[in-house]
Amino acid sequence: MDTVTALRELIGEKAVLDAAELAERPAGIWRPDKLRGEALALPRTTAEVASVLRWCHAHGARVVTQGGLTGLVHGADTEPGDVILSLERMREIEVIDPRQRCATAQAGVPLQALQEAVEPHGLMFPLDLGARGSATLGGNAATNAGGNRVIRYGMMRNMVLGLEVVLPDGIVLSDMNCLIKNNAGYDLKHLFIGSEGTLGVITRLVLRLWEAPLSHNMALAGLESFDAVAALLKHMDANLGGTLSAFEGLWRDFYRLVTTAPAQGRPPIAGDYPYYVLLESQGADPELDAQRFERALESAFEAGLLADAAIARSESDCADFWALRDDVEQVFNGGFPLVFDISLPIAEMEGYVDGLAAALPAAIGEHKLWVWGHLGDGNLHLAIQVPVEAAERLRPLAEEQVYAPLAAFRGSVSAEHGIGLEKKPWLPVSRAAGEIALMRSLKQTLDPQGLLNPGKIFDPA
Amino acid sequence: MDTVTALRELIGEKAVLDAAELAERPAGIWRPDKLRGEALALPRTTAEVASVLRWCHAHGARVVTQGGLTGLVHGADTEPGDVILSLERMREIEVIDPRQRCATAQAGVPLQALQEAVEPHGLMFPLDLGARGSATLGGNAATNAGGNRVIRYGMMRNMVLGLEVVLPDGIVLSDMNCLIKNNAGYDLKHLFIGSEGTLGVITRLVLRLWEAPLSHNMALAGLESFDAVAALLKHMDANLGGTLSAFEGLWRDFYRLVTTAPAQGRPPIAGDYPYYVLLESQGADPELDAQRFERALESAFEAGLLADAAIARSESDCADFWALRDDVEQVFNGGFPLVFDISLPIAEMEGYVDGLAAALPAAIGEHKLWVWGHLGDGNLHLAIQVPVEAAERLRPLAEEQVYAPLAAFRGSVSAEHGIGLEKKPWLPVSRAAGEIALMRSLKQTLDPQGLLNPGKIFDPA
Repeated sequence: MDTVTALRELIGEKAVLDAAELAERPAGIWRPDKLRGEALALPRTTAEVASVLRWCHAHGARVVTQGGLTGLVHGADTEPGDVILSLERMREIEVIDPRQRCATAQAGVPLQALQEAVEPHGLMFPLDLGARGSATLGGNAATNAGGNRVIRYGMMRNMVLGLEVVLPDGIVLSDMNCLIKNNAGYDLKHLFIGSEGTLGVITRLVLRLWEAPLSHNMALAGLESFDAVAALLKHMDANLGGTLSAFEGLWRDFYRLVTTAPAQGRPPIAGDYPYYVLLESQGADPELDAQRFERALESAFEAGLLADAAIARSESDCADFWALRDDVEQVFNGGFPLVFDISLPIAEMEGYVDGLAAALPAAIGEHKLWVWGHLGDGNLHLAIQVPVEAAERLRPLAEEQVYAPLAAFRGSVSAEHGIGLEKKPWLPVSRAAGEIALMRSLKQTLDPQGLLNPGKIFDPA
Repeated sequence: MDTVTALRELIGEKAVLDAAELAERPAGIWRPDKLRGEALALPRTTAEVASVLRWCHAHGARVVTQGGLTGLVHGADTEPGDVILSLERMREIEVIDPRQRCATAQAGVPLQALQEAVEPHGLMFPLDLGARGSATLGGNAATNAGGNRVIRYGMMRNMVLGLEVVLPDGIVLSDMNCLIKNNAGYDLKHLFIGSEGTLGVITRLVLRLWEAPLSHNMALAGLESFDAVAALLKHMDANLGGTLSAFEGLWRDFYRLVTTAPAQGRPPIAGDYPYYVLLESQGADPELDAQRFERALESAFEAGLLADAAIARSESDCADFWALRDDVEQVFNGGFPLVFDISLPIAEMEGYVDGLAAALPAAIGEHKLWVWGHLGDGNLHLAIQVPVEAAERLRPLAEEQVYAPLAAFRGSVSAEHGIGLEKKPWLPVSRAAGEIALMRSLKQTLDPQGLLNPGKIFDPA
């Protein structure tokens, strides 16, 4: 019996697309190409996921799990023979528990849907990222998503209390508890979080919720030196007493890009400082928190850390400030952007970026370089814009310039996007041979046939 | 060649104690019995740890790693034939980096030594627990220690940025980076954190540091109902905007125990409420934070959540409040305390404790029951005091009453103490057969000979 027919017998006629049907779907929400595969299964329950996986296990079929398809590293790419498991019909928010402050949801729930569902309960799910409308909770967990407020709330790993996972052979591992503390043996959920769908299929999650903040304060600051940026991070964090919720860095060229036409944004402060920082604090007392935020900025100004700053005076100002930071699509204007996501110690950032800027002309010729990122977490994003027709040729040369220098100070080739296929050649920059060997052993232990998301992160031994 | 001679050749004459020498050492800092083993190795470096493990691996010798020996679940117990690896000579704090806000230390550094070393830099390492003077950073990581401020800062897992581990065959896995975000493949450190020394030996750590708080506010509150306790947690967390750093619950009998002679403490408020809560916030602005803390308490009082409260007016008051909470040794007066560490949803706590109190007389006869714990994290500690001479006989009966009811609501038999030997029979209450099977597979993958801390957490397949 062929794959499509077999899977339809298991989970229903309309729950499986054949090769022709699935080829009408885009391969990713920002991609022009189409999906490839032998069958696309659309289970509604964990039991249906398990039955698909059992069949694939018995028949040696490769399985690629897909969520919102918002990934940037080809982590959910498929081959023509693959079974694609899309969790898009598993989008039930099962429980929101205001007392325990947790939510139970299926893995296909979009991030934004959960954010909005908990709001009426006075709660917040703090993970936040640009793709919130499409990215799913299961994908967020499988990739250990980061985003805008990691400095305060941590990454997705820090928000997952319980996890239900289907193993490659169809066995369901259900650890759906809501406990903050649980040292009963190995904490297996951490094995699956961030493993990019290579060890199991996440089907349901229990997520920690936080009391919703009642105050927001924001400022956009201009700084004369990178030393001042690093000092400002410490100063604000120390003076805001745990309420600093974002510290986003924008290098001058990126600031100018997003505050100049054709971008919609306009500069809240002059555009001639080398560095800009977007600061946010979240608290509970609008009056006292605003006082504290302004005091902290004043003392930073008196200490010579700030050259200029604009303080948001309304929710609309806050939205405008965030819109500048989020207007990343400007990097597409006028060429093709090679986009990077790296992590490095703050003491190394200035030298690293300056060195990269100095080395790129000889390595790849004419280009534009923009730098921004979640600076409070050590996470920089880079866009290197090159001519569209040269992009494929120049990509490996640019990657060499971006990634190779990170090895000297134990930087990461992936702060939050994952490895997928795109960064696989560069994994050894950030991980030693012994670490990659242990990753392979774990893969072999959990998925000895190598059927789940094959070839992602690393090749088999 | 015998074990002692062989190990002395590897790491030096004075770095290895023989069976007679090691038998002079206590088996734990609160234990009357002595260590048992064939040899006790005292390496000073990761390389020495690796050479000991290589030898043990080649000769099939069992290895038990020991830190400060403050564990409560027999997680570092040894057998006469074991090689004991004590990291007590590996106590160098190598780097404190105020800019990156991280510290690099050897695993044998006592927790309190790190806490004190970072203070002059205006930084804080927020893990804190009663055994701080003896418990080591390596042990904290191996057991994923919790303690007093998990509600704000998370458990040890949340504070470890980088880890160096020696695998059972002597291979060194060094992931000593200081990055908050690093999604470059599987995050292997989470495999070792909380694995109680069964998968590898942690030799060095990079730990995240926080800016030191500049303000502390504390109160001790009396409440008329458990519903009010649960509501107060939400109220204070929502109104303190992220600065709530401890929410410790004390049931009436425990409060009376620690505020009545022979205890040194005296009651800050009357002793006839059924529940007491110790509240702490840590912030950065002494004036505004005190205002906010008092406002939040006032509105809790107006909402009918609090019956009475005493606010700490000085550092000395704060110390006195904490001393009540920490005076756990009172449970030793007048009998033998069977001590438990469990985790459960807050909605279940009142019924659970009442049910336990009702069931114990029939199950174990005369006893005293005290309840307290890190209530904000869902973590309760229980002491069931029984006659000294009956303790061994009554222990399994008491365990049955404490642990079995947790299964109904996915509670944990170990919130923070780990499983060790003591809770091994009860692991199935909190973990399904499939989860335990996967734990065994991971153990088999990393330690196929089963040499590291054998028999702890679970038995081999």
